[in-house]
Amino acid sequence: MSSEFTLLHTDDSSQARLGRIDTAHGPIHTPAFAPVGTQATVKALDPRDLRELGAELILANTYHLYLRPGADVVAEMGGLHHFMGWDGPILTDSGGFQVFSLAENRVVTDDGVVFRSHVDGSQHLFTPEVVVRIQEQLGADIIMCLDECAEPHDRAYNEAALARTHAWATRCLEAQSRSDQALFGIVQGGIFADLRQESAEFLAGLGFPGYAIGGLSVGESKPDMHAMLDVTVPLLPAEKPRYLMGVGAPEDLLEAVARGIDLFDCVLPTRLARNAALFMRQGRINIRNAQFERDPSPVEAGCGCYTCQNFSRSYLRHLFKAGEILAARLATIHNVHFLLALMRDVRQAVAEGAFDAFKDEFLSGYPIIPHEVRATNRERRKSHQGSR
Amino acid sequence: MSSEFTLLHTDDSSQARLGRIDTAHGPIHTPAFAPVGTQATVKALDPRDLRELGAELILANTYHLYLRPGADVVAEMGGLHHFMGWDGPILTDSGGFQVFSLAENRVVTDDGVVFRSHVDGSQHLFTPEVVVRIQEQLGADIIMCLDECAEPHDRAYNEAALARTHAWATRCLEAQSRSDQALFGIVQGGIFADLRQESAEFLAGLGFPGYAIGGLSVGESKPDMHAMLDVTVPLLPAEKPRYLMGVGAPEDLLEAVARGIDLFDCVLPTRLARNAALFMRQGRINIRNAQFERDPSPVEAGCGCYTCQNFSRSYLRHLFKAGEILAARLATIHNVHFLLALMRDVRQAVAEGAFDAFKDEFLSGYPIIPHEVRATNRERRKSHQGSR
Repeated sequence: MSSEFTLLHTDDSSQARLGRIDTAHGPIHTPAFAPVGTQATVKALDPRDLRELGAELILANTYHLYLRPGADVVAEMGGLHHFMGWDGPILTDSGGFQVFSLAENRVVTDDGVVFRSHVDGSQHLFTPEVVVRIQEQLGADIIMCLDECAEPHDRAYNEAALARTHAWATRCLEAQSRSDQALFGIVQGGIFADLRQESAEFLAGLGFPGYAIGGLSVGESKPDMHAMLDVTVPLLPAEKPRYLMGVGAPEDLLEAVARGIDLFDCVLPTRLARNAALFMRQGRINIRNAQFERDPSPVEAGCGCYTCQNFSRSYLRHLFKAGEILAARLATIHNVHFLLALMRDVRQAVAEGAFDAFKDEFLSGYPIIPHEVRATNRERRKSHQGSR
Repeated sequence: MSSEFTLLHTDDSSQARLGRIDTAHGPIHTPAFAPVGTQATVKALDPRDLRELGAELILANTYHLYLRPGADVVAEMGGLHHFMGWDGPILTDSGGFQVFSLAENRVVTDDGVVFRSHVDGSQHLFTPEVVVRIQEQLGADIIMCLDECAEPHDRAYNEAALARTHAWATRCLEAQSRSDQALFGIVQGGIFADLRQESAEFLAGLGFPGYAIGGLSVGESKPDMHAMLDVTVPLLPAEKPRYLMGVGAPEDLLEAVARGIDLFDCVLPTRLARNAALFMRQGRINIRNAQFERDPSPVEAGCGCYTCQNFSRSYLRHLFKAGEILAARLATIHNVHFLLALMRDVRQAVAEGAFDAFKDEFLSGYPIIPHEVRATNRERRKSHQGSR
């Protein structure tokens, strides 16, 4: 059976919703944040860690797994769940974003995209049919249509890309041969309200079991992101899940939940962790800072994660300064816990009709970093790895 | 209270012994292998992993922790156990080996050793009094005398170094101010039987609560190593534990247990793991090898470790090829499990009077790599990190 979404409750004073997606590998309680396991591992964590952290959904990258170890290898090993030892729900993206974040070496036609591997320079073709086939080999519970992610401020490019994205969405639906995977359409259209509306209406007409919103958090301003959600979400069917791709900053999660988003994924918590940047309710700290050399307190007082329950800021700083592998692991555990705990709090607040107050209180204490998303995106493009 | 050794049983047909060291942080059942946590972490593992693996003793390096984060920082954070979140027994070495494996930048006098930090080039002095003081700040259960580890084939150097090592042992005993740490003497003497005998007799006369044998597995042949154990061990008091420093190859563990050794430490299992080399009863495999690309079996059939219980060779190979952090973690779990399980089997065999048969059976299936130890040592010296 494919994944089924149940809408449990919608907030009175916002668009925030409480729901549940039932998959063959267990339920996902929404609003939910999915840690990213680009190469079939959430970096520095093992599946037992993810369970203990309360992760209900993880994302893996079609582009990366297609190139290495190969979708046929994963299929031969019993599919992605078995391969990576994670028996909970998995979502794979279509690989489109990665192809388009590798700025060089790609040629887009109406048929698909020709690109060169960042691993070995070999040439490859992604078409709607190819990416559906690959995702069927990988075997995730939720899979994505091939889309074209354009520079968000370029009107002409967004018009052309949107036409392709829509044609590809139709072809993906036709190409799907497995009935146990939920194929989501992806709304595009840059920062142009009319294109976003057109895209939402077109895809809603195709009757997908879920809808993603792509091409946001890729360089546009936060007001632009909010405006695009405001025009898009109301045009998507209420009884289907809505997934905002590549967004994971705490303030963005809250603003998007308020606008009716159910699912999120982002490399932010794991990538920041490896750079020693740790989430706190009062904003982030960089644990390498000299001020933590003799600080016996946990990263965040009151935090229930394994890291905060067992280790001091002083020890974490030492591990980072000494270049120890355990640094990445303990920092990742804390950051992923922070976002998953935030989403649990969000769900409880929505259930209690107190989401607005919760959001206001959180945001009043959390310093917003305006160029967060843009900087992350720049780093992503520079690295040529482009994992959302 | 200091650590107490209880000799439980000695084998009939070899010198193999069964014992228990009771420390303030719990018992160590001997013969025991201690994983090495050079910089206050066993690389890629957390304390929960170590507990689950059944580790009863870990080693940390005085030299590294003195330089970074500093023994005063560790002391201020409540000592090494609290700092690294490990409440089991810890042994610290004296730092002597690390100083002497940094071939450049050291000047030895009868007073001690002046050397430059491999971290920042700053100049430091280790004397017997200084290293006892540092180890008292770190707070391990078992601590070591400052010794001089000489090139094993150089007679004149070994004579001079041994005189210093003995004088330093006396000074370490006098310098000790904490009564809750067991200070072990270290037998030296290169590959010279008369020097080893002289050293064992001299140190036994000082009445240490335990005795280490240093300066082996540093470039000498296996027959030389065995010969040195044969002449040394019988001169050490039977009622005290005997610790062979820096030895961890499976065949060396068995040969040394047969000669009456109770304790071991070595970076071999953790370092090999990070290089994708995995222990098996039939010898080692390198999991990066192309033959494992589509191998659905665990690293070793029948192995009870978390890695083998949950992941295939194919997945481990993928993690190493993709440069994922989880590769180091899963490989380290397997290799440390292998050696700790081997030592559990050894203890059971000794208890059952079947050690000789166990050793013969194991060694008949395990291909010995003659230059293993030497190669590891060369790598160690090249890296200028010198962690045993």
